[in-house]
Amino acid sequence: MQPMLADSVRLTDDGVLILDRRRFPFEREWVLCRTAEDVARAVEDMVTQSSGPYFAVLYGMVLKARTLEDLPHEQARAELAKTAHLLENTRRTNNALRKATEVVLEHVDAAGDVRHALHGAAEGDRRYRAKSQALGEHTANLLPDDATVLTHCWADLYLTETVRAAQARGKRLRFFCTETRPYLQGARLTAETLIEMGVDTTLITDGMGAAVLQSGEIDALVTAADRVTMDGHVVNKVGTLGLAVAAHAFGVPFHAQVQAPDLLAPTTDHVEIEYRDGAEVLQVLGRPSATPRVKGLYPAFDVTPPRFVTDVVTDRGVFGAGALDEYYEGEQR
Amino acid sequence: MQPMLADSVRLTDDGVLILDRRRFPFEREWVLCRTAEDVARAVEDMVTQSSGPYFAVLYGMVLKARTLEDLPHEQARAELAKTAHLLENTRRTNNALRKATEVVLEHVDAAGDVRHALHGAAEGDRRYRAKSQALGEHTANLLPDDATVLTHCWADLYLTETVRAAQARGKRLRFFCTETRPYLQGARLTAETLIEMGVDTTLITDGMGAAVLQSGEIDALVTAADRVTMDGHVVNKVGTLGLAVAAHAFGVPFHAQVQAPDLLAPTTDHVEIEYRDGAEVLQVLGRPSATPRVKGLYPAFDVTPPRFVTDVVTDRGVFGAGALDEYYEGEQR
Repeated sequence: MQPMLADSVRLTDDGVLILDRRRFPFEREWVLCRTAEDVARAVEDMVTQSSGPYFAVLYGMVLKARTLEDLPHEQARAELAKTAHLLENTRRTNNALRKATEVVLEHVDAAGDVRHALHGAAEGDRRYRAKSQALGEHTANLLPDDATVLTHCWADLYLTETVRAAQARGKRLRFFCTETRPYLQGARLTAETLIEMGVDTTLITDGMGAAVLQSGEIDALVTAADRVTMDGHVVNKVGTLGLAVAAHAFGVPFHAQVQAPDLLAPTTDHVEIEYRDGAEVLQVLGRPSATPRVKGLYPAFDVTPPRFVTDVVTDRGVFGAGALDEYYEGEQR
Repeated sequence: MQPMLADSVRLTDDGVLILDRRRFPFEREWVLCRTAEDVARAVEDMVTQSSGPYFAVLYGMVLKARTLEDLPHEQARAELAKTAHLLENTRRTNNALRKATEVVLEHVDAAGDVRHALHGAAEGDRRYRAKSQALGEHTANLLPDDATVLTHCWADLYLTETVRAAQARGKRLRFFCTETRPYLQGARLTAETLIEMGVDTTLITDGMGAAVLQSGEIDALVTAADRVTMDGHVVNKVGTLGLAVAAHAFGVPFHAQVQAPDLLAPTTDHVEIEYRDGAEVLQVLGRPSATPRVKGLYPAFDVTPPRFVTDVVTDRGVFGAGALDEYYEGEQR
């Protein structure tokens, strides 16, 4: 059975249905986005995150394309490109959104018809799931037969495919997951889904990661990456850096998962780190955690330098953080 | 003006009044403990923490002594020793509680009269404040004139005395503080008190510490320690280890504050790390952060090895983590 979060963005006749991850698992409510602009707002407002925005953008492009079918192609194509720009810019740190708009536009361009947006979205959906499955298998191969894994935030399909592949190989998994403030994705999404998948799961606060890594219980730190630069910097949910540094200090390998390193990001100079509203740090589940006299800071991502990264697991296999060029070897750039 | 939390445990005719730190600053309610047993329960239930239990134990001993005044001295002394044992064991990681019962019993023994418990408590109170002031001054001397400091949890009088001393020297302070889950002492106690003292304060989640240390903005990591072993291990609120490791990785000094290293703890083998109920990790401000299907783990403290500690600041000055014997030099052991 597929965990609920693995299929939580759906295209319907009425629009795009997105499971509200801000309330999951306490409530299981879907937000209906009738337009691409609704999709953009939902992504900005964190209705979905991790892999969710990728699927939301695919289908947001389809919603837009549906409104353009009666226009001359050039005009329709230009409008669709504007929507692509809008959707890509909802979250700027992860490069998956650009890939989502690209696959849709490629199909539209190849056919010279915006109605082919749907085929592009379907292809993007299929491709993302296939790559996630491949990298999940490569990750599972890295884990020992009795593996205790520490993870951070919510790695979405990368996590569920890793678990599925490990279970298929008969590996016995145990997970520690950090709660991942301020939105508690670890407590609400990761822990819940791991339990749904039958994995022994222990939740810790974000400050406990180093102690758990020091304890000798952890075989590997495994997290997704929103972006990996060609020079091996891992950009992921803030908190990853601290865990990676501690893993390095205590001799635990850190496997960072990403479908592919980003050719458009040779270095971190090419990655924009999203700073969200500091006020988001001053609340927990909608209740204030500090008085209004306090100011918050919310860098949504941090950057782990390659010296703290053991390897990067991609759909094409495992690469050293200093050898990511090999991912593209033999390929036309 | 003294910050509210610097005087939040008070002896009255009716009992010991303890400001409820679980609700501060949203509510400012005092819990009245009429007996030493009430005090023990309040400390176990986290009504007060950090330096708070030290003062609560001093005055809890006085409450008990008041009930023993009509007994023969030997019998009264034996009863008081039982209460000392009860109070010391409410929180086992911090050795301050043992010092609180000791100073009271010393005065009782010297006078051969349990009524002298009150003098012992007053002496313990005075001594703790004087030592905190001294170590605050030594810490302030370590900071540059424009100092940006990262701290974790709530260092209580060590923090307020450091700030007071730095301000007296005309230093311009800026603080980042971690929220410190699960009880959010950083968000509720530290941030609020720093602002009360006029310090520019930014709150971050526990996972953001490494990114802030990497940014180059931080001049020093400063935390209290619940215990420092003679071989230089710093035992403090869980989360300190991760910050210390990151500070070390990014070249930021870590100053750990403790009144004195613990002669009774040559190594960490002599320190019991308190594991609290894992369920406490699964809630935030009383609301669930995960479903009941998830299990939590709550090591309340972690242990930072000396290689990640720049120095230990005590009431007698600053010592290298590898040279703590010097604290007791010339002293009769």
